[in-house]
Amino acid sequence: MSEFSRIARYFKPLAGACPEALGLGDDAALLQVPQGSELVVTTDAMVENTHFRLTDTPQSIAQRLLRSNLSDLAAMGAEPYGYTLIFSAPQTLGESWLAAFSETLQEDQVRFGCTLIGGDSVRTQGPLTLAITAFGLVPKGQALRRTLKRPLEHVASYDVYVTETVGDSALGLMLAEGHALTGLSVADEAFLKKRHYEPQPRLDVAQTIRPFALAAIDISDGLVADCGHIAAQSGLEVTLESSRIPLSPSARKALQANPALFETLITGGEDYELAFVIDPREEGLLSIAAQKLSTRLTKIGCIHKGNPGDIQVLDEAGRVIPLNRKGWEHF
Amino acid sequence: MSEFSRIARYFKPLAGACPEALGLGDDAALLQVPQGSELVVTTDAMVENTHFRLTDTPQSIAQRLLRSNLSDLAAMGAEPYGYTLIFSAPQTLGESWLAAFSETLQEDQVRFGCTLIGGDSVRTQGPLTLAITAFGLVPKGQALRRTLKRPLEHVASYDVYVTETVGDSALGLMLAEGHALTGLSVADEAFLKKRHYEPQPRLDVAQTIRPFALAAIDISDGLVADCGHIAAQSGLEVTLESSRIPLSPSARKALQANPALFETLITGGEDYELAFVIDPREEGLLSIAAQKLSTRLTKIGCIHKGNPGDIQVLDEAGRVIPLNRKGWEHF
Repeated sequence: MSEFSRIARYFKPLAGACPEALGLGDDAALLQVPQGSELVVTTDAMVENTHFRLTDTPQSIAQRLLRSNLSDLAAMGAEPYGYTLIFSAPQTLGESWLAAFSETLQEDQVRFGCTLIGGDSVRTQGPLTLAITAFGLVPKGQALRRTLKRPLEHVASYDVYVTETVGDSALGLMLAEGHALTGLSVADEAFLKKRHYEPQPRLDVAQTIRPFALAAIDISDGLVADCGHIAAQSGLEVTLESSRIPLSPSARKALQANPALFETLITGGEDYELAFVIDPREEGLLSIAAQKLSTRLTKIGCIHKGNPGDIQVLDEAGRVIPLNRKGWEHF
Repeated sequence: MSEFSRIARYFKPLAGACPEALGLGDDAALLQVPQGSELVVTTDAMVENTHFRLTDTPQSIAQRLLRSNLSDLAAMGAEPYGYTLIFSAPQTLGESWLAAFSETLQEDQVRFGCTLIGGDSVRTQGPLTLAITAFGLVPKGQALRRTLKRPLEHVASYDVYVTETVGDSALGLMLAEGHALTGLSVADEAFLKKRHYEPQPRLDVAQTIRPFALAAIDISDGLVADCGHIAAQSGLEVTLESSRIPLSPSARKALQANPALFETLITGGEDYELAFVIDPREEGLLSIAAQKLSTRLTKIGCIHKGNPGDIQVLDEAGRVIPLNRKGWEHF
């Protein structure tokens, strides 16, 4: 199957009637950015045997690829607009794989409100390599960033929150890779794997907190590493309280059976939850906002003066928990 | 070397003081598109052993990667703005390679007026895989496309032009891959290889012809295939006259020694010259514009009613030259 036929059959339908894509028939796409908006651009790649295995379903590969990018848009408080796709595949990749992959992208496009606007499809003799560059819109000057919107003043610290639960994805990946975890039912295992294979970008939370949140990041490298990024960019220190970190019932069971898993939960990565910073004087705004959301929001610690870029996790007695590694490094 | 160190050492300097990149310290970049402009987005990938070899210099790999994307911007009449980089490399890739690669990108950024605004750096166990998504700006409604800006009327045909010379890159690649070409001096060989390894995006030509050109494309798949794309998108037929197709003195020598090379010259691809369409009644505008340019512009044929999407190349007697293949397919 030639590149042109592949694009025509599997990727053109994803561009649909989107005028920006010019039917994928041109050298480039044309984006209109409304006055009063800024364009948010993010890019994430996934490589076979580094980020996924070909034994994973094409559906889960498509979902993780697109949603990890949408999660970056959420972290900036942006609404999805469109994306381009780099598709570098070995000749052995079958048409049924391609069909399932592109159908899943189509479903997620509808779910999250974005369309394919361009891409490149190339041949490789190596592992399947996929990359998406995603575009979102945010009102001018209102993007959430890792840096605090305003410096720490009048209060000793700002609060750090996280959406839903942390660490499920890391446990799900362990299970998928054949590690046995004790204490889990079949349903627990299925839940944890689903949390790894079907991340949920927190776009609705991002839209809701954008007016008053002071900083945000999506958890891709692990809770500790990503809160560390906020600390580093803001020149402050983050302190998290381990007892406040929200865990799913399944993760809690695994932890009970093996307390050493705690470090995995908070450093494992790929949660695609949002961590964000709120001025404690604006807790009321957050409470009102939270009522409109079906996503759980939990205060897990604070950001304060200290060693710039440092992050500490305290146990219930207030002692610093020593960590061997603070996050997942890609290289 | 960790991903973070690699980004900090080799890629952060490319983002420099560019405010849009947010110092590569955030989840995404923030682009401001001026009112009255549209954003042009294009993406091209290059894979080791498909599009380049690791025996090629890192300089030439960087140049071909960035410039092939800038050439797409030129085809749309856009001015470069910024780009994101996907860098998927095996652990064996050395630091001196990275240093040379990023230095070359830095030089090209200055030359062509764009900066790195984001990216992703990942590990692969397979071939080095690189992709750029490039951004350009074009005044609203003025982008050049493969489709004619206005339909063919009042005249029987519009003229098709090409910049500089065609086929050098294909010959350069043959030489680089060890094919012997007869009739060439050492200087000819060096010239042809340079044409392959150092493409020149015709950004200045694009800016100059944008107000009156009716369609444009950059020659990446080969002159015949790419003029065929204009024909297909416009629902018309293109006829090229072989005697008008501009060849470099080096290509002419190779052709003289082996006339069978003609097909390679016009279908070989990766010329990164521009082919564009002009209403013959606006030839005067083109002549005036051409005087400001140091790039040669040559009328090579016309686009007219006929079989939609068809392209013919005629010999000096006006007979159709049969072609075995019309362009380079990536798959």
